[in-house]
Amino acid sequence: MRLVVIGFGVVGQSFARLLLSRSADLYRLYGVNPRIVACIDSGGYAVSATGLDLQRLLNAKKLSGTVGAYDKENRKFDPLRLIEKVDAEMLLELTPTNLDNGEPGISNIIAAMKSGKHVITVNKGPLALAFPSLLELANYNNIKLRFSGTVGGGTPILEFAKRCLKGDSIISFQGILNGTTNYILSKMEEGLTFEDALNDAKYKGYAETVPFLDAIKDVNRRGITGVSLSDVRRAHKRGNAIKLIAICNNKQLDVKPTELSNVDPICVNGTLNAVTFSSEQSGEHTIIGQGAGGIPTASAVLRDLIDIRNTIFEQRENL
Amino acid sequence: MRLVVIGFGVVGQSFARLLLSRSADLYRLYGVNPRIVACIDSGGYAVSATGLDLQRLLNAKKLSGTVGAYDKENRKFDPLRLIEKVDAEMLLELTPTNLDNGEPGISNIIAAMKSGKHVITVNKGPLALAFPSLLELANYNNIKLRFSGTVGGGTPILEFAKRCLKGDSIISFQGILNGTTNYILSKMEEGLTFEDALNDAKYKGYAETVPFLDAIKDVNRRGITGVSLSDVRRAHKRGNAIKLIAICNNKQLDVKPTELSNVDPICVNGTLNAVTFSSEQSGEHTIIGQGAGGIPTASAVLRDLIDIRNTIFEQRENL
Repeated sequence: MRLVVIGFGVVGQSFARLLLSRSADLYRLYGVNPRIVACIDSGGYAVSATGLDLQRLLNAKKLSGTVGAYDKENRKFDPLRLIEKVDAEMLLELTPTNLDNGEPGISNIIAAMKSGKHVITVNKGPLALAFPSLLELANYNNIKLRFSGTVGGGTPILEFAKRCLKGDSIISFQGILNGTTNYILSKMEEGLTFEDALNDAKYKGYAETVPFLDAIKDVNRRGITGVSLSDVRRAHKRGNAIKLIAICNNKQLDVKPTELSNVDPICVNGTLNAVTFSSEQSGEHTIIGQGAGGIPTASAVLRDLIDIRNTIFEQRENL
Repeated sequence: MRLVVIGFGVVGQSFARLLLSRSADLYRLYGVNPRIVACIDSGGYAVSATGLDLQRLLNAKKLSGTVGAYDKENRKFDPLRLIEKVDAEMLLELTPTNLDNGEPGISNIIAAMKSGKHVITVNKGPLALAFPSLLELANYNNIKLRFSGTVGGGTPILEFAKRCLKGDSIISFQGILNGTTNYILSKMEEGLTFEDALNDAKYKGYAETVPFLDAIKDVNRRGITGVSLSDVRRAHKRGNAIKLIAICNNKQLDVKPTELSNVDPICVNGTLNAVTFSSEQSGEHTIIGQGAGGIPTASAVLRDLIDIRNTIFEQRENL
């Protein structure tokens, strides 16, 4: 499986480290041998038809701030042309979320699909702004599009809903779907101001550029910028906590700061995400797990990769 | 999909009701059309090559205590011979758990496999006592064996571990895996004695015959019969609760009453089950859901049925 990786920040580097440490296991357990044949960031690119040396790639990024330093020569490049021309089966779209116009994510994904490459993205921008057309393009070109890492980071919330409740119906769900904002709110509960908590989240590599806008259109949303330290303190005294809760009920979607009891199973702290699905037959199911962080999100990319591979080869696990 | 159902207690009747209410959906969404062509309980049996009338079957059971009353005549019968001879694709083994010798479950499952029928069971006995040989027999005969309902009732704990963490490794897990004992402990926390709580659980249809033995061999286990009302009260005063916790770590399996903090995500009440999986890359994932009850467990049977059907037809969901 030959991969083009575009965007080599926290998630991209974590993914490269995962491949370094897990490649033998991946081959033994799933029959996949993922090789990064091209890696592109905002400063340059590196290509190798037989697969890049991942340790050298990580070193180049660390020392020079760009994967362009992998080779000595520093060439001009057009990322979209690179995505189209490189011989590979899959694009990992790991550029930062941009909710103004979804770029460069949308163009990267389109370039990959048009050149017959399956796409895995952890980028919420293209999904928030262009999901129906991307899905149509994927189906038209017989391309698999996967995006587990956009929801819940490393927690398989989408997979759970898709795979684990067959024959049942999900009626509604509610939960904390943004590990970054939850981290900020948890830090505020420990006494930090919003600004200090945001800076701390950025320092830890959790925060995206504008985390409080982390929501999609067609959603009634209010972010956490209006939540003050004194709001958080007052809730705390009542045995409650303020959480950014997403609620979906009858196709109505809301995201807003909500005061929850500390004993509610979805009232989790730090970068944890938690979702409760209400199903018709089997009642409520709550999933709690890491909602941010490089390695967890990279593990979601790896899950998507294995899923695409299995779907293509129609190989199903037997008991 | 023609089904033989053996055992027509709470789960079996709930399954029949699910089929009555969901059959149009099941055909539309999954292309399955499950018909019960034979139903057997300890008092008799009913057969129909074109599928039993489920409402009439439920009425017969309710009025006479046995599905044998479905037809007027009351015939002698040999359940194993019936399982073998009836023309069907699948056996639902829903007889009560027996941890002494696993019967009649083990013999029922073997009869089904030998006559080419896939098997879904919610019966822990055969798995606890004969899992390796049943698995070998299934593989030898190219039979699918599924048992989601044996763990977590309606909560897809096994599916989560099997399907949602691909590419990652589960290092350990701990949790509450028995909704019935958890119900009893929760009732004791409300002030009931063990005996009263057990009777209440039986009345509600949650309790199996000997719920505190609900554990498998090769497991160091201690049940909840040694937990007194005063133990529960003392823990409660400390902000804790006593739960029957299963822990698996380095292939060491323990089940024992354990005092947990009320803020631990797995410290859930009533018939809820909760499990935390610790994974290598994506951290801890906690699943919480209904661990007992007829309809939730019947929905696990339905999930297994759809899974077997998909596996056989190699039909995979596309995006």
